[in-house]
Amino acid sequence: MELIDGKKINAEVKAEIAKEVEKIIANGGKRPNLAVILIGEDGASATYVGSKIKTCHEVGFESTDVKFPESVSEDEVLAKITEINNNPNIDGLIVQLPLPKHISEHKIIEAIDYKKDVDGFHPVNTGRMAMGLPSFLPATPAGIVELFRRYNIDTEGKNCVVLGRSNIVGTPMGLLMSRKATPGNATVTICHSRTKNLKEVCANADILIAAIGQCEFVTADMVKEGAVVVDVGIHRVKSDKTKSGWKLLGDVKFDEVAPKCSYITPVPGGVGPMTIISLLKNTLLAAQGKIYRK
Amino acid sequence: MELIDGKKINAEVKAEIAKEVEKIIANGGKRPNLAVILIGEDGASATYVGSKIKTCHEVGFESTDVKFPESVSEDEVLAKITEINNNPNIDGLIVQLPLPKHISEHKIIEAIDYKKDVDGFHPVNTGRMAMGLPSFLPATPAGIVELFRRYNIDTEGKNCVVLGRSNIVGTPMGLLMSRKATPGNATVTICHSRTKNLKEVCANADILIAAIGQCEFVTADMVKEGAVVVDVGIHRVKSDKTKSGWKLLGDVKFDEVAPKCSYITPVPGGVGPMTIISLLKNTLLAAQGKIYRK
Repeated sequence: MELIDGKKINAEVKAEIAKEVEKIIANGGKRPNLAVILIGEDGASATYVGSKIKTCHEVGFESTDVKFPESVSEDEVLAKITEINNNPNIDGLIVQLPLPKHISEHKIIEAIDYKKDVDGFHPVNTGRMAMGLPSFLPATPAGIVELFRRYNIDTEGKNCVVLGRSNIVGTPMGLLMSRKATPGNATVTICHSRTKNLKEVCANADILIAAIGQCEFVTADMVKEGAVVVDVGIHRVKSDKTKSGWKLLGDVKFDEVAPKCSYITPVPGGVGPMTIISLLKNTLLAAQGKIYRK
Repeated sequence: MELIDGKKINAEVKAEIAKEVEKIIANGGKRPNLAVILIGEDGASATYVGSKIKTCHEVGFESTDVKFPESVSEDEVLAKITEINNNPNIDGLIVQLPLPKHISEHKIIEAIDYKKDVDGFHPVNTGRMAMGLPSFLPATPAGIVELFRRYNIDTEGKNCVVLGRSNIVGTPMGLLMSRKATPGNATVTICHSRTKNLKEVCANADILIAAIGQCEFVTADMVKEGAVVVDVGIHRVKSDKTKSGWKLLGDVKFDEVAPKCSYITPVPGGVGPMTIISLLKNTLLAAQGKIYRK
């Protein structure tokens, strides 16, 4: 069993991005600039945004930090999005989710210029991904694909089971794994709450990607000997064994599943560290005009 | 075993659309108008376009028939698309595929206003479909979903295997069957040329959708007793038993597979008749502003 070290790969990709930024600057170019819109006072959202901006600076990006109070109107946010869409100095724009209830998530996402949609949530990017065209890939699936690439994990012709069909993880993950590409070319099965004989389906997977949002859902009896297991879940639970009084668990019951695996991502330190870095990679690609011509 | 009668359902849906058109006219509205651009002299394409236009008139639609010689430039076609995009009298626009080699299919498709993209090929429609949002669905998958609906075929929690991952059939079919909807909510596996143990995967399907483009590929040993089999293939082969000297076959070896099925679509007369009618349904929805506000 080999642990897939997301932290290590994160550091590698981060160093590569930083090097690219240095090259851009050396050639007289401008720093990639990521704009982040945060609405309201949610602590978790503020923490995520803080990490994103911090990582931006670590690789040499400029950042543009826009904050609105919870009471902001949808029109104000849309106006700000239009302003950023039209600002040639900003390469990427994300709006931190979730949004307050009075603001339509889809309206906001669709208002972002798809050429700056580095979260890969705009329908044009989802559609182009489904069609196998260049696009900004959503961060978590892109991060998982990158882990497979760096660990030389063979996906071609493998039975890949994706647990979960969310718009930001399960569905795009399935599309990426089934497309004609490397990594990719897998035989993909998407499972969800309505799936019958779920254990049986999972136990048949060469590659199992758990993104079901239920703590320690995947148990040893659901995993084939030698499988590759990727754990997208992240759950904060009480613990009397840590100083902080809590610990992080995934969608996979790690202790009993890990011994059966050829590769497994731990929680924390597996998929998590790959998501922000994928967002930054998209921002770099946007700045370089590598997905869409500038 | 029950035959799924695409011709019958086609007639039902056609009558419903015609009735809607009558209502629109009675209320002082204008006839839905479908524009079709055909490039070059390919006989099969001309036949398809002819059928589409004929069916338009049968339901009371107006049609706009644009033909270019093979030698037309990409820019000329793009200019025509822009003209039609801006013409408020035209509700839907399709460009018949395949295109001559000097014209980029993706450029053409992405130039069509997604609000008039009644073929459902534009990335915005593909992306919105993947996200479970209202969109123009591509004709063949939409036609199959309609057959399931009209025959009350239960798809929830079923193992659905899709053979083929094309942008216009396999991939969208998988997305539609796995989404949270009725029909839908199936556990979907997408198979393709790189899939190993294909027979085994197929033999486990409650619903098998063959869109692999190989004549009589699916044999009885690949089909579970009681399965629902949908045959998307259409192949013209020589025959000494027909007056014309040829006959149509599907991707499924019908004679040996049919006895094992609960439901099966024949070729011809199964999926085929549903595709044009799905295109017309989209055009009606476009005219009514039911997918995107006008």
